[in-house]
Amino acid sequence: MPHTPLSLLLLIAITGAPICSGQYEPNWPSLDTRPLPAWYDEAKIGIFIHWGVFSVPSYGMPDDPDVGKLPGGNGATGEWFWARWDANETNNVEFMKQNYPPNFTYQDFAPQFTAEFFDPVQWAKVFQAAGAKYIVLTSKHHEGYTLWPSIYSWNWNAMDVGPKRDLVGDLAAAVRSTTPDVKFGLYHSMFEWFHPMYLEDAANHYETDEFVIKKTLPELYEIVNAYQPEIVWSDGEWKANSSYWKSEEFLSWLFSDSPVKETVVVNDRWGKDARCHHGSFLTCNDRYNPGVLQPQKWENALTFDKESWGYRRNSVMADYLSIEETLAQLISTISCGGNMLINIGPTKEGMLPPIMQERLLQMGSWLDINGEGIYGSKPWAHQNDTLTEGVWYTAKDDAVYAFVLSWPEGDTLHLESIQLPEGPGTSIEMLGYDGGPLIGVESGGVLEVSFPPMSEVSSQWAWTLVFTGAQPT
Amino acid sequence: MPHTPLSLLLLIAITGAPICSGQYEPNWPSLDTRPLPAWYDEAKIGIFIHWGVFSVPSYGMPDDPDVGKLPGGNGATGEWFWARWDANETNNVEFMKQNYPPNFTYQDFAPQFTAEFFDPVQWAKVFQAAGAKYIVLTSKHHEGYTLWPSIYSWNWNAMDVGPKRDLVGDLAAAVRSTTPDVKFGLYHSMFEWFHPMYLEDAANHYETDEFVIKKTLPELYEIVNAYQPEIVWSDGEWKANSSYWKSEEFLSWLFSDSPVKETVVVNDRWGKDARCHHGSFLTCNDRYNPGVLQPQKWENALTFDKESWGYRRNSVMADYLSIEETLAQLISTISCGGNMLINIGPTKEGMLPPIMQERLLQMGSWLDINGEGIYGSKPWAHQNDTLTEGVWYTAKDDAVYAFVLSWPEGDTLHLESIQLPEGPGTSIEMLGYDGGPLIGVESGGVLEVSFPPMSEVSSQWAWTLVFTGAQPT
Amino acid sequence: MPHTPLSLLLLIAITGAPICSGQYEPNWPSLDTRPLPAWYDEAKIGIFIHWGVFSVPSYGMPDDPDVGKLPGGNGATGEWFWARWDANETNNVEFMKQNYPPNFTYQDFAPQFTAEFFDPVQWAKVFQAAGAKYIVLTSKHHEGYTLWPSIYSWNWNAMDVGPKRDLVGDLAAAVRSTTPDVKFGLYHSMFEWFHPMYLEDAANHYETDEFVIKKTLPELYEIVNAYQPEIVWSDGEWKANSSYWKSEEFLSWLFSDSPVKETVVVNDRWGKDARCHHGSFLTCNDRYNPGVLQPQKWENALTFDKESWGYRRNSVMADYLSIEETLAQLISTISCGGNMLINIGPTKEGMLPPIMQERLLQMGSWLDINGEGIYGSKPWAHQNDTLTEGVWYTAKDDAVYAFVLSWPEGDTLHLESIQLPEGPGTSIEMLGYDGGPLIGVESGGVLEVSFPPMSEVSSQWAWTLVFTGAQPT
Amino acid sequence: MPHTPLSLLLLIAITGAPICSGQYEPNWPSLDTRPLPAWYDEAKIGIFIHWGVFSVPSYGMPDDPDVGKLPGGNGATGEWFWARWDANETNNVEFMKQNYPPNFTYQDFAPQFTAEFFDPVQWAKVFQAAGAKYIVLTSKHHEGYTLWPSIYSWNWNAMDVGPKRDLVGDLAAAVRSTTPDVKFGLYHSMFEWFHPMYLEDAANHYETDEFVIKKTLPELYEIVNAYQPEIVWSDGEWKANSSYWKSEEFLSWLFSDSPVKETVVVNDRWGKDARCHHGSFLTCNDRYNPGVLQPQKWENALTFDKESWGYRRNSVMADYLSIEETLAQLISTISCGGNMLINIGPTKEGMLPPIMQERLLQMGSWLDINGEGIYGSKPWAHQNDTLTEGVWYTAKDDAVYAFVLSWPEGDTLHLESIQLPEGPGTSIEMLGYDGGPLIGVESGGVLEVSFPPMSEVSSQWAWTLVFTGAQPT
Repeated sequence: MPHTPLSLLLLIAITGAPICSGQYEPNWPSLDTRPLPAWYDEAKIGIFIHWGVFSVPSYGMPDDPDVGKLPGGNGATGEWFWARWDANETNNVEFMKQNYPPNFTYQDFAPQFTAEFFDPVQWAKVFQAAGAKYIVLTSKHHEGYTLWPSIYSWNWNAMDVGPKRDLVGDLAAAVRSTTPDVKFGLYHSMFEWFHPMYLEDAANHYETDEFVIKKTLPELYEIVNAYQPEIVWSDGEWKANSSYWKSEEFLSWLFSDSPVKETVVVNDRWGKDARCHHGSFLTCNDRYNPGVLQPQKWENALTFDKESWGYRRNSVMADYLSIEETLAQLISTISCGGNMLINIGPTKEGMLPPIMQERLLQMGSWLDINGEGIYGSKPWAHQNDTLTEGVWYTAKDDAVYAFVLSWPEGDTLHLESIQLPEGPGTSIEMLGYDGGPLIGVESGGVLEVSFPPMSEVSSQWAWTLVFTGAQPT
Repeated sequence: MPHTPLSLLLLIAITGAPICSGQYEPNWPSLDTRPLPAWYDEAKIGIFIHWGVFSVPSYGMPDDPDVGKLPGGNGATGEWFWARWDANETNNVEFMKQNYPPNFTYQDFAPQFTAEFFDPVQWAKVFQAAGAKYIVLTSKHHEGYTLWPSIYSWNWNAMDVGPKRDLVGDLAAAVRSTTPDVKFGLYHSMFEWFHPMYLEDAANHYETDEFVIKKTLPELYEIVNAYQPEIVWSDGEWKANSSYWKSEEFLSWLFSDSPVKETVVVNDRWGKDARCHHGSFLTCNDRYNPGVLQPQKWENALTFDKESWGYRRNSVMADYLSIEETLAQLISTISCGGNMLINIGPTKEGMLPPIMQERLLQMGSWLDINGEGIYGSKPWAHQNDTLTEGVWYTAKDDAVYAFVLSWPEGDTLHLESIQLPEGPGTSIEMLGYDGGPLIGVESGGVLEVSFPPMSEVSSQWAWTLVFTGAQPT
Repeated sequence: MPHTPLSLLLLIAITGAPICSGQYEPNWPSLDTRPLPAWYDEAKIGIFIHWGVFSVPSYGMPDDPDVGKLPGGNGATGEWFWARWDANETNNVEFMKQNYPPNFTYQDFAPQFTAEFFDPVQWAKVFQAAGAKYIVLTSKHHEGYTLWPSIYSWNWNAMDVGPKRDLVGDLAAAVRSTTPDVKFGLYHSMFEWFHPMYLEDAANHYETDEFVIKKTLPELYEIVNAYQPEIVWSDGEWKANSSYWKSEEFLSWLFSDSPVKETVVVNDRWGKDARCHHGSFLTCNDRYNPGVLQPQKWENALTFDKESWGYRRNSVMADYLSIEETLAQLISTISCGGNMLINIGPTKEGMLPPIMQERLLQMGSWLDINGEGIYGSKPWAHQNDTLTEGVWYTAKDDAVYAFVLSWPEGDTLHLESIQLPEGPGTSIEMLGYDGGPLIGVESGGVLEVSFPPMSEVSSQWAWTLVFTGAQPT
Repeated sequence: MPHTPLSLLLLIAITGAPICSGQYEPNWPSLDTRPLPAWYDEAKIGIFIHWGVFSVPSYGMPDDPDVGKLPGGNGATGEWFWARWDANETNNVEFMKQNYPPNFTYQDFAPQFTAEFFDPVQWAKVFQAAGAKYIVLTSKHHEGYTLWPSIYSWNWNAMDVGPKRDLVGDLAAAVRSTTPDVKFGLYHSMFEWFHPMYLEDAANHYETDEFVIKKTLPELYEIVNAYQPEIVWSDGEWKANSSYWKSEEFLSWLFSDSPVKETVVVNDRWGKDARCHHGSFLTCNDRYNPGVLQPQKWENALTFDKESWGYRRNSVMADYLSIEETLAQLISTISCGGNMLINIGPTKEGMLPPIMQERLLQMGSWLDINGEGIYGSKPWAHQNDTLTEGVWYTAKDDAVYAFVLSWPEGDTLHLESIQLPEGPGTSIEMLGYDGGPLIGVESGGVLEVSFPPMSEVSSQWAWTLVFTGAQPT
């Protein structure tokens, strides 16, 4: 077995993880041949959940200029609290100074992560009502705290300190029993900001791999075996290559031998050489929304609190995406071949903040009317109309869907990228309007669609036209 | 001075409160002669703020049947946490048992009332953006904890325990300097559930008055002198008569000699004989909305969280009034001569929960368009239309305003209670529609108003027609 | 009734305290005529207990030079923590800065005063084993926190915040039932450092008396009526005269009409005019030990931790009185007509620190042997020997007792102040030595007493000679 | 290298620990050939320090009958709090129920381990004043919490949670710089009650060794390399053989290649096959004091709080060894060839409880006088006298020392086990008595030694006779 490095042998000896002998070999060319399981492209909409010890300080303020270069990005990212505090970000340092004793550490927040109101069945129902087809929970963020009782993270996990519950297991069970059509996925951070073994490997320029062997990989095997997630959403990989992380070995096992080998999908964050290049779908950057069709399946991960993934107690209304902004993201993403993974940050008590519930339910009510053009759709010949801004297309079976973000002036929409030959078998309808077909008139290469009276239309925000028999121009 | 009882003499000796020799004598007939200061009726919309130690547990669940008779009412009233726990309300008892040590008392919550994010200027700006013209803050709820550093409540006030700030003073200053058109008022509870002096007076069937002399009245004088509130919103009076509370004496001073004697308004909760009978305006019950014109000025105090006045961490989306429900309350209240006092519950950290900000800002955006028919309006001859439900009237100067809660089917509204003589000087317009007058046609005693295309109207929810030259039928 | 000032009338009206019409009038000349109840002089030894919220920080360091002028004295007085912190004492300020959040206040310590191990019966047994005949508990120290559930100190007492127990009541009951020969007394501070009403009176140069009327006196009546203490040990009086405190009125009631009028004794701290002048016994200063016979009964209040009355977690061995130092204080005090009130500081958990138990039990074991010359004794003609230092006398019935602090060189003690006529009916014995009378030889006006072999003597420290038939020189 | 098992190879690969190639091979026969470094036998007296998270609850009560079989023994062992609570020991369960919320875990105690008063230099001075020649600190007890910042115990060590200090490093540095004649040693628990990897190995009947490879051994290497302890005091080994723990491999390295290879001593708790059989000295059981001469060097580890090794806030005076009991243990132990390791339990704040300081200083004052017969002494021909109980012998150079626990009746001591030939060059002296030689008279095989006047002897408790020219009978 010339592929198997010594350290991996050690890992095998330690964890008992089987050496894969399956169809996908531990190298990117082989792994890249795996087809994307169909469910993922059809699902379109997932909910991302950032929850952890960071939900206790649940605080973030926009960067001051001095520390804008932090990897946590230039927002007020609550989930990066620890790293930004450690890096002397002014607001976080001041927040700690004003509210805690001098020797209070981040670890001291953990006992306050109480989750006393956590009702996973209620969560599952909200996710379903939002129209989501999958969820992705942070099983472990860069802080290293595991939301499941990891054998490799004793006293720094949700069973030992804080909730005293297996949050991963409880949510997995609730989702699977309550809303079986919603798939359960797990986010997992490869690195941990302050794990001493990681810091040692980093100091060794990633030429040692004690942290990967004793922590990262054992945990990945552990969560896949224990919870059988259908998404493994990796992160925190960017400082080292996939060879350090042994990602190819892990994925080879995941795709060939794991209990979820048939259905699992993974993102692309498996090493700085892998991001935006390998994986079931690409995420490239946070809030990735290229605006044009991509050759490969991709995902737009974004968050209702524009400044943060983790909950922030100090957020104000202006920080939140409006429903209109949310739908613009959703529609443009789907049109260009992406999925949307929209993020929420529960509170330390285990509640979904009402403003996030409001947005989720608004999104769900929109999808109840307009979801026909979203779920199971494919990108069309054009993604957006070249004449009228804010019109995006998808296709499914014989139909072409045009999503119109703004109601047209004078109730007439002008389209340039689509043509509708006259004759039987062609029509234009609007989802959520029962008054019959709309009139479309071609004039000088522009299709003019007469909108119905707005007062007879049930969709409150973006409106969906369904074209039958249409052609791209 | 035969009116002055001995105990009041003692009070005077102790507090130095002046004996009023002014125009309003300490008896209801005299007090009732005072005219309502004009500002209050014109203001129409206030914001109620319930904040206190109860914002720490910030928990409430609907009653179980056994304890439905609690005075806190039959909702999951978070601000009644202490009393309901003390009365063995099942959920509250269980909540404490599950989350706190056995000997944890309500008082132990106080140090966690931290208010570290409290930014009174930001609050003031939100209140103004919501269209409010006055606010009413709970200076002290039934728990007895004072949000100002009362000399009569040592170690049970916001300066000594918890925020370590004069919350009343800080908010008063911010409102007055930031939004001088918004008036500042204070809620004050006469009784305190568990004050030992009160309990003693109660055990004596209110024939002793040590609590009133040493606590209630000194505090009322203190807040009026220190903060000069333009509303004194009394509560917690219902178990005893106004003679026990010495309300007539206090109001006589307030109206005749206090620093706010010209402008102050008070509600009606000054004794079980006074509620719904005496006061600048009547509140009668919580969420009082009689639906018909009242002979006297009144106020509808209601709350976004339908279950609670204080913030509840365990609230879910279904607990909150929608914007449509909020506007229906607002409009029906104003039409019938009331003011609306809409309540929010800040968090223990001092934030306005985003869902409440969302509703406030939605209300404000509606008032930006439709406020013309609200502020400074008077009830009209009819309050609501007898033909079409959900249409409410107000009047101002020559105009009559009809607020239409639901867009009419077929874009045509049928009204029976109003008539519009043909001829010059009469017209119908819609606020937020720039396309000119609407067409109204009388037919068989019914006025049919043609609505404009909804897509050209800026108001998102209830719509306001402005009639010039109209008459009641 | 020309003696009764208006404010006292108010007090009477408020508290219902009866106007005394008894034998002692409310003025010092009358009060001073009351004889000292016999039990107190016979008891000799009491235990002082300083317990309160200060037992939570339980910290004190010797003064820095800048703040040596604090009334808390020049020791590291833990029970003065609040005042010294407030006065910017360097160590206390630094202690708070290093260990608590910036806005932590003294009041925030109270919930940590848990007393979970408080076993008053065990305390009572230790007090008895120590040979104490009375105890004095701080019912309220200058911090104002009452160890009983005072109606006048709501939410700042041991029932509402902290132990959730009536500490005064529980200890009173345990002492009375377990060790009925030990009398129960209460310390009470007149002033409270930071009570806003007190501060107001102080700012008014004690020309107003709201604090005395509403707080000090009602509480004094409350504790006497509720707990019937046989000692009322007043303190915190030094800034104002007894006329401000209305001490004469209170004592008149206490001596003439109270439930303890026959047996109660009081100290002298009733006003800056009263200390060291009036009272059942005089205390003058802390650690008052004049070293010579006093014309009036007095008491030496001192403490095992030489630096502090309240428990200090940061105390070290060198801070504690040795048993030899303790006995030297005891003996010299009794010889000069005083009682010794030796102080201990329980922990916030309610334990007596073992080092204090050790000293108490050592003292008790010494008294088991030597108590005959202590309890019920009277000062003798001389107090200490003029020739040999460290020899102190008492008398009882026919006997004269000489307490010898240091075993004499060569086993021979030389005394100059006593003479023992030869003949029948005179003898010298040593307590704790069974070997019969000692030989005393007079030579040149010096009495030479031959000590027995030390190895046959049971007393470990100071030794007691009993003279029969002796005369003073 | 046939000795090297695969798992050890893995360890080497992971930790970089060198394979020893030194003089002691990894097997007991070879290890047993190592001579005892001389310093240890000469030192005689060490101080054991039990400090850890258990110092936070610092609670223990004697067993109830149901749980007497716990390995923590039948005392009220505070340091076993976690295990006894987990095993449903009645008192501990009740203590938690009464004082903490239901979901409070042992880990939640860790942030309260504050050590704010920890002054290692002051500790070192007390240890020296006590006459100790070495100390042994619990670097890690069975709870697994490391008092040093172990790379293998992230977030469960004194740097990350609690004191935020390297307690091991700080004490090592203080002892070495302040009292260089006192040697620094470390206690280390092999197993951890609740470490999930240990539990897995245990469930596998110790046929797997993941815990040893990833936790126990890496930590042992870490503390030896980092702190160079001169004692490695192992414990927690009793459920598995030394082959599971790989103790022989570790000791081979420790004795042959480690930085302390010349001077280090170890006890015998390296596997259930090793205890009482292998090691530099034997400890066999806690409080091991066989009372007769042992063929091999041994140590009596005992504790001032008779019930507990960790500090107990709820201890009472009766729980503590008196100084007389302490000296009886010390003397009998030294006489029989043992060392005494006397234990103290610091508080969570980092203080040495005054009662323990008192005993240490008493012990030190005794050793100042009597240490000549202790330090550097050897067992004599007899250990204790067969005639008079409580007389123990040691020898050094030409002298024989007899320690007399109780002062003899009639000042005459009768000895049967020693004879003193008459003639020049023989004598009896008493340490702490300056009055010259004592008279010894032989009579019927009994040596009668006349004691001096006790009042001229400086030792307060046990007295030491020094015989020159004496012979055993």
